[in-house]
Amino acid sequence: MRSVGIGLIGSGFMGRAHALAFRMVGGVFALPVTPELELLADINEQVAAEAASALGFKRSTGDWQTLVSDPQVDIVAIATPNALHKPMALSAIAQGKAVYCEKPLAATLAEAGEMLQAAEAAGVTTLVGFNYLQNPMIALAREIVHSGEIGEVISFRGIHAEDYMADAAKPYDWRCEPGGGVLEDLGSHILSLARYLGGDISSVCGRLRTVHKWRPVGLGASELREVTVDDQADCLLDFANGASGSFSTSWVACGRKMQLAFELVGSKGALDYTQERFNELKLYAANQPKGREGFKLITAGPDHPNYGPFCPAPGHQIGFNDLKVIEVKALLEAVAGLGEPYPDFREAWEIQRVVEAVRRSSTAGQWIRIEDV
Amino acid sequence: MRSVGIGLIGSGFMGRAHALAFRMVGGVFALPVTPELELLADINEQVAAEAASALGFKRSTGDWQTLVSDPQVDIVAIATPNALHKPMALSAIAQGKAVYCEKPLAATLAEAGEMLQAAEAAGVTTLVGFNYLQNPMIALAREIVHSGEIGEVISFRGIHAEDYMADAAKPYDWRCEPGGGVLEDLGSHILSLARYLGGDISSVCGRLRTVHKWRPVGLGASELREVTVDDQADCLLDFANGASGSFSTSWVACGRKMQLAFELVGSKGALDYTQERFNELKLYAANQPKGREGFKLITAGPDHPNYGPFCPAPGHQIGFNDLKVIEVKALLEAVAGLGEPYPDFREAWEIQRVVEAVRRSSTAGQWIRIEDV
Amino acid sequence: MRSVGIGLIGSGFMGRAHALAFRMVGGVFALPVTPELELLADINEQVAAEAASALGFKRSTGDWQTLVSDPQVDIVAIATPNALHKPMALSAIAQGKAVYCEKPLAATLAEAGEMLQAAEAAGVTTLVGFNYLQNPMIALAREIVHSGEIGEVISFRGIHAEDYMADAAKPYDWRCEPGGGVLEDLGSHILSLARYLGGDISSVCGRLRTVHKWRPVGLGASELREVTVDDQADCLLDFANGASGSFSTSWVACGRKMQLAFELVGSKGALDYTQERFNELKLYAANQPKGREGFKLITAGPDHPNYGPFCPAPGHQIGFNDLKVIEVKALLEAVAGLGEPYPDFREAWEIQRVVEAVRRSSTAGQWIRIEDV
Amino acid sequence: MRSVGIGLIGSGFMGRAHALAFRMVGGVFALPVTPELELLADINEQVAAEAASALGFKRSTGDWQTLVSDPQVDIVAIATPNALHKPMALSAIAQGKAVYCEKPLAATLAEAGEMLQAAEAAGVTTLVGFNYLQNPMIALAREIVHSGEIGEVISFRGIHAEDYMADAAKPYDWRCEPGGGVLEDLGSHILSLARYLGGDISSVCGRLRTVHKWRPVGLGASELREVTVDDQADCLLDFANGASGSFSTSWVACGRKMQLAFELVGSKGALDYTQERFNELKLYAANQPKGREGFKLITAGPDHPNYGPFCPAPGHQIGFNDLKVIEVKALLEAVAGLGEPYPDFREAWEIQRVVEAVRRSSTAGQWIRIEDV
Repeated sequence: MRSVGIGLIGSGFMGRAHALAFRMVGGVFALPVTPELELLADINEQVAAEAASALGFKRSTGDWQTLVSDPQVDIVAIATPNALHKPMALSAIAQGKAVYCEKPLAATLAEAGEMLQAAEAAGVTTLVGFNYLQNPMIALAREIVHSGEIGEVISFRGIHAEDYMADAAKPYDWRCEPGGGVLEDLGSHILSLARYLGGDISSVCGRLRTVHKWRPVGLGASELREVTVDDQADCLLDFANGASGSFSTSWVACGRKMQLAFELVGSKGALDYTQERFNELKLYAANQPKGREGFKLITAGPDHPNYGPFCPAPGHQIGFNDLKVIEVKALLEAVAGLGEPYPDFREAWEIQRVVEAVRRSSTAGQWIRIEDV
Repeated sequence: MRSVGIGLIGSGFMGRAHALAFRMVGGVFALPVTPELELLADINEQVAAEAASALGFKRSTGDWQTLVSDPQVDIVAIATPNALHKPMALSAIAQGKAVYCEKPLAATLAEAGEMLQAAEAAGVTTLVGFNYLQNPMIALAREIVHSGEIGEVISFRGIHAEDYMADAAKPYDWRCEPGGGVLEDLGSHILSLARYLGGDISSVCGRLRTVHKWRPVGLGASELREVTVDDQADCLLDFANGASGSFSTSWVACGRKMQLAFELVGSKGALDYTQERFNELKLYAANQPKGREGFKLITAGPDHPNYGPFCPAPGHQIGFNDLKVIEVKALLEAVAGLGEPYPDFREAWEIQRVVEAVRRSSTAGQWIRIEDV
Repeated sequence: MRSVGIGLIGSGFMGRAHALAFRMVGGVFALPVTPELELLADINEQVAAEAASALGFKRSTGDWQTLVSDPQVDIVAIATPNALHKPMALSAIAQGKAVYCEKPLAATLAEAGEMLQAAEAAGVTTLVGFNYLQNPMIALAREIVHSGEIGEVISFRGIHAEDYMADAAKPYDWRCEPGGGVLEDLGSHILSLARYLGGDISSVCGRLRTVHKWRPVGLGASELREVTVDDQADCLLDFANGASGSFSTSWVACGRKMQLAFELVGSKGALDYTQERFNELKLYAANQPKGREGFKLITAGPDHPNYGPFCPAPGHQIGFNDLKVIEVKALLEAVAGLGEPYPDFREAWEIQRVVEAVRRSSTAGQWIRIEDV
Repeated sequence: MRSVGIGLIGSGFMGRAHALAFRMVGGVFALPVTPELELLADINEQVAAEAASALGFKRSTGDWQTLVSDPQVDIVAIATPNALHKPMALSAIAQGKAVYCEKPLAATLAEAGEMLQAAEAAGVTTLVGFNYLQNPMIALAREIVHSGEIGEVISFRGIHAEDYMADAAKPYDWRCEPGGGVLEDLGSHILSLARYLGGDISSVCGRLRTVHKWRPVGLGASELREVTVDDQADCLLDFANGASGSFSTSWVACGRKMQLAFELVGSKGALDYTQERFNELKLYAANQPKGREGFKLITAGPDHPNYGPFCPAPGHQIGFNDLKVIEVKALLEAVAGLGEPYPDFREAWEIQRVVEAVRRSSTAGQWIRIEDV
């Protein structure tokens, strides 16, 4: 079987998740190609060497351009700060390599657009790491929505809230740099779900807000630095198909660790989901017998897409890292010519376009049509 | 002990709930006055007589003006269609009687304003039936918020969704008449909670929507009638104290029977509540020990306001009708000169002003300041 | 309409619940007779007079025998300590009156047997206050089980745990007197459910345990008194129809306020219930479509027995006191010749026989057949 | 770093889970040794070769004795039918190799005893695959219990119920062979938890039951074969430290996919857990402020043992296969001389002894002391 060389740039939180996924995927799924953990790049030789050793990569480098140009590297996986996505992706694309990039696609919509154009012109395979979309229960949700099982989509109400910036004493960090903010960091996840289930968004009306306007420059420091990025955002949504809804996002939501949740109402039923219990999906079907109406709690099992290869028994549950395994499986299949991974650069650009629209809407204090962005 | 005569106008869903509450309240609470179920009015003599007999009123009448003028009637309870609230309330106020009116206060903000002015000029006791505010768990939520136990309020995300109009085949009825709509019917409840917990709302940006634009004129009828009122609304909120948030409301939300719910985030904690399980409140406190952080599920018991008189043991639960009992207890105390019932006409008018602002905002497609309404 | 005079003995926790129920029931249900709150008896004239005034009884007495003999009293409601049930009930039965007795029926099985014999010989109407059986969701559960909707009953796993005796510093009180104990106090509730849903129990193997063997004689007292009654019990069950199961009961279960819960497994489905959320019932039906299997959460509504008269809308929820209202409605109907109330003295005796069997089984350290008790 | 050769016997459900765990563990944890997927044995050469290829083992064999004797194999992982555990383990022990065996340890207690003696005599490292014990939330539960945070253990109420044998039409299979049964298959899991949290069990009183006494010999076959093993068991428990409790187990529990759950009551608090949501633990602490009492829902995060290496962020959740990764990490550390893995052969034998006691108790219809087994 053909080997496919993986080059990973970055070995932090998400880089590590990439590595674990590539390491695991061949054992879980019957793949058309064999991924080889070929080369790992990080900020310098030493960091890269240690990470390569820990994660099982054959070689390492302190220079990402070396990685991109390496003849053994077929797929370039980018798990670096957002601002670096563009040069890395463009370089990989220029060399005809598949690109697997963490979300958001780029620091700005314009950069994301450049990346999209280059990728489509080159015809390379792309995939962006909105890993929550890979969940078997989300695949089930999409199947239920798209089959018409719950009728036409009427409304979508979503949220992605966590609390890692809730403490006002938490120092200013890279997340506070202009271009960042919770809308980009978490809001893009709930928007990816809104589009995946509800289709194109046509217009938005959002309001961003910085809750903690000053943060210490370091832990316990008395000196403060001004924060300009959003801690919280709320937004109204119109979908192209006539559905409507809203979403909220926050990284100052005390007590929330992974509240990526939605309620989707259809004309003949409804779905209720939270990533806090992501091996479950609640389904309501209209026209149940009288006195027997209710939301049904469906537990992930081998009858749902991509669950069975992890475990033949239902209810045993997959974990966060397993979502990434499903993600890279689609990537490797695509590289072998089987299917298209989702979401690709185009979809990631569409998501980013909505993010940009929400931002502009907040600044303007009015509704913005997506097609005008 | 002094008797207080109750005159009830209307014996439908809510009228019946009023009657049951007045019947029960003296057994549950130690009251400063004794309510007498004096007189019940309905659309004609026969309906009124039957209802009076069933509910335990001494006398009945087919003419509400007779009721309002009856010398034995001290409190006029109004549980009629919204359009009738104003003349009934004005008449009762003119005769110096206390008025207990179902929500919304009136069919329009202007009418509500007239009622408010008359009541304040006359100095009569007023109470409006936003009964969900009377819940011991909501009293607890307010206590937690107002005491600063969870810091300053940062955000409020609310919803009131049910599904009694979800079926597109459900005929056009009084709810579809212009002036109605879900924003008025259910949205006002979640707004009453938003204000109760978060304080004054300063501006809104809403979007109303009619999902089922045509409904049959009768059950199974092929003739259709156009619906112009809102089936669903979503809205962004700014609070005067700097908090922000959103709410949604829908009567076409398949599967939902009583989703009156909110998540309130504070700077030092959070609350999570749904009327679907209204004897419970979830509380998160910041600064819990590491590894022991989590939302706590508090169950209603005698340590919470107004629960104990129903049952000395925690966890036994009160029901919907009991909320109404708490409501009339406050009313009877106020009539006896003890305290002010909440929400009175002023608060109900404030809620209705926000409703009106949301409506105008939707029409205008932009943010509206409450003070401009 | 014929009046039926109510005489209530005892005005503590449960006596008060009786009074509220009789006060409310006529407003909620269309009854064939009118209950009159005729006479209230308590330990002395003063206590009785105050309670009668608070609860709305016409007259009061410090002598229960006066009450039982009163010609205006048709139904004698007994809400006194268990040891007093027998003389009161026998006296009422002797005078041909209906008896509404709190559970357990008596302090011992022998006493309960005397009461049963007397009642059946006299042919009077009897009802015992296992009020949790009156819940619309329990009626639904029974309907589902008895209709064969989930096949044959295979197993029943129940519990009734609360924590009102969890604190070892809680003084010795009447609950600690020989003849009491949690098996009698709470265990009888879960056994009443086991029989209501699973039918006759054929044999048991139980183990009682006193967790806190010494308690202070008073609050903060250093003197201790030995406790001999059970704080906790666990028991295996065999049902006559071949089903099997178990139950546990405890009043030292830290954190539990109303954990009266069961899981009933049938050959074609299952039920899952807890009194902690008693307006809900979870139902699993076998043979659901693949990938759509799950427990359904059914919310109480007017499609379920006895809910509608409280509220025409689903999801609004009834409370603990409302269960008592349903209970007395059945009693009043029976007194008017319509139907048989459940559970009557016979059923209460059957429950007590199982309680006694569990106790003997624990002492003997072996299985006991119910028919041998 | 020293390499440790893994030899895996069996590549079915659990064998595959072993393989994935060994494949993943080095990427997740910083290990003192490097596991090499050296050799895989299965029922014949072809099956073994295919599995080795799919799972990433270097070599394969159709003969398990070859594997055990292979000089590159340091750890023998046994994931075969229970009856084969003994010869394989004894052979590995005889050659001084570490043994990692699936649960239950053996088909009979006597066989388990032989294995235990051999292992202890040889001083080899052993580990048995009760993987649910490896869960960070179970480690947290143990920490809470052992630290005295919730006082002394008073009671333990456990269950492990699933429904993979619920359908009476499901054919007779290896699970129905004498020596098997749900008590062994699932009951051993809840007993492993009972011991892990509550300590030694001193006596039991159980009742096993075959619910479906005849099953078709094949799918849709009309010929039936008698089943003698247990489909369901219920049992009372006494713990050596004075605590008491019960457990139930069933593989015919319609609707249950992974109901491995317990409620543990302590003198100063309580725990509530279900494997259905195994990234959560509910904790109740006595002596909370009045009106603020409640169970707290703790979500797994890096503050809990072994979670962080999977993901630095709380609430992201680990999956079933990750439990196995934690399990093999302990094994590899032990092989390197760091710590003792849990549960080893001794603990697995203790669990099996309780299983055997429950079985004997059921046959005898009476309580059995564990020390008498």
